[in-house]
Amino acid sequence: MKIIGEKINGTRKRVAQAIAERDAGFIKDLARKQAEAGSTWLDVNAGTHPDKEPDDLIWMIENIQSVVDIPLSLDSANPKSLEIAIKAVNKTPMINSISGEPERLEKILPIVAEHGCDVVALAMDEKKIPETFDKRMEVIEKVLGSTRAAGVPDNKVYVDPLAMTIATMNQSAVIACDTIRAVHAKYPDVHFTMGLSNISFGLPARKQVNRGLLILAMQAGLDSAILDPLDKELQAAIVTTELLLGKDKHCLNYIRASRKGIFDKPAE
Amino acid sequence: MKIIGEKINGTRKRVAQAIAERDAGFIKDLARKQAEAGSTWLDVNAGTHPDKEPDDLIWMIENIQSVVDIPLSLDSANPKSLEIAIKAVNKTPMINSISGEPERLEKILPIVAEHGCDVVALAMDEKKIPETFDKRMEVIEKVLGSTRAAGVPDNKVYVDPLAMTIATMNQSAVIACDTIRAVHAKYPDVHFTMGLSNISFGLPARKQVNRGLLILAMQAGLDSAILDPLDKELQAAIVTTELLLGKDKHCLNYIRASRKGIFDKPAE
Repeated sequence: MKIIGEKINGTRKRVAQAIAERDAGFIKDLARKQAEAGSTWLDVNAGTHPDKEPDDLIWMIENIQSVVDIPLSLDSANPKSLEIAIKAVNKTPMINSISGEPERLEKILPIVAEHGCDVVALAMDEKKIPETFDKRMEVIEKVLGSTRAAGVPDNKVYVDPLAMTIATMNQSAVIACDTIRAVHAKYPDVHFTMGLSNISFGLPARKQVNRGLLILAMQAGLDSAILDPLDKELQAAIVTTELLLGKDKHCLNYIRASRKGIFDKPAE
Repeated sequence: MKIIGEKINGTRKRVAQAIAERDAGFIKDLARKQAEAGSTWLDVNAGTHPDKEPDDLIWMIENIQSVVDIPLSLDSANPKSLEIAIKAVNKTPMINSISGEPERLEKILPIVAEHGCDVVALAMDEKKIPETFDKRMEVIEKVLGSTRAAGVPDNKVYVDPLAMTIATMNQSAVIACDTIRAVHAKYPDVHFTMGLSNISFGLPARKQVNRGLLILAMQAGLDSAILDPLDKELQAAIVTTELLLGKDKHCLNYIRASRKGIFDKPAE
């Protein structure tokens, strides 16, 4: 399971403040902790106005790279920002994200192809998220047609099936899991990733729901997720599910995680 | 999800003591608490020598039935005990269990058929548990052939795919889930049940593994389990997984469970 550490995101108030005040210590600390917790990539989202975004991204990237050496996931809707940011990274980054929206495909796919990036592909079209399984597959096939046409190999693409808010869409997790299974069957080299928090919007004990979604989606074939790597209960769920899915030979990772205290009750 | 409350089991030291000392208060308390926690059946296992078992079962059944009115799951390997116990129950019980073992089938199936009982069918043969998926399917098909021949309808049978110790059998949970999916596809009316604790034998933080197995097996089609209904974290996992599987319209059960405090951290 590959983790995209989600914490360096300027849409979060405390991170926005750190960016505005150029509080490098705060950003570095988030980077270090997430890397130590086993992130494969660190998401970097400035969350600022397009005029300021390139400068903010450069500042964030430089500070993050001064303390960790894992690749970044450049999280911006703005192709110009991505083009500038990609020149500042030490390692080939992931691009987060493309969708079926033609403008986004046209402008971002060439960057992905040129630099050999991994890329998150959202199962949505022109900012609309299809409600049915069939329509979601249609959008994904369109996106995968475009990535192939641009020369991006399937194994660089991380499809996000988009698990919507279950309070307003009862079959949301079922559709997400079915989508993963169907895409995997047809495109065996494609990877999957997912944000976990939309699903539980409006519900109590949201972490319960997010964690349950992660476990079910892993059984369906999810092999990456955008999440908080410092959440011990999520980490415990990942290690335990990998064990149960027969992916932890001799239970070594599970036992190692236990020794690290990952299953101890959090102080919360 | 139907729960078979597992706590009244004479192989547990404290219960054995209560049976030996005829401590009716202890047994009644376990019965009441498990019924209040939402059990569909209460398992009743005397765990005593075949000579004493019928008397012990009668005593247990009478005390349990004096405080709760849900049906029981008569848990004995001894057909004679079952025949005697079945005369003491107020409601048609579940019989726990049959297997592919011919002697067990011959002696227990007629009781199941005559009384219209539900029955747990273990995926094993002559006390050997098949290690591969194919062999396990073979045993289950044999057992289902016997139940059908005896006139027991498929919807009275609860197949237990037997999730073995994962520390010695890496694919144990995968095989159990695959078995549920395959049996469900071929015998759509058959139900499933499962004990959760063997899987984690020898590992630390066993409840993590048991709970993960439950969630994955529910996605595969598990619709019943033999478990401790007083375990709040298990109950939380059930309610959350049913929500995610699209079986909780308007999230009502989930929200009700939250109000009952089921997601609060246990004091452990």
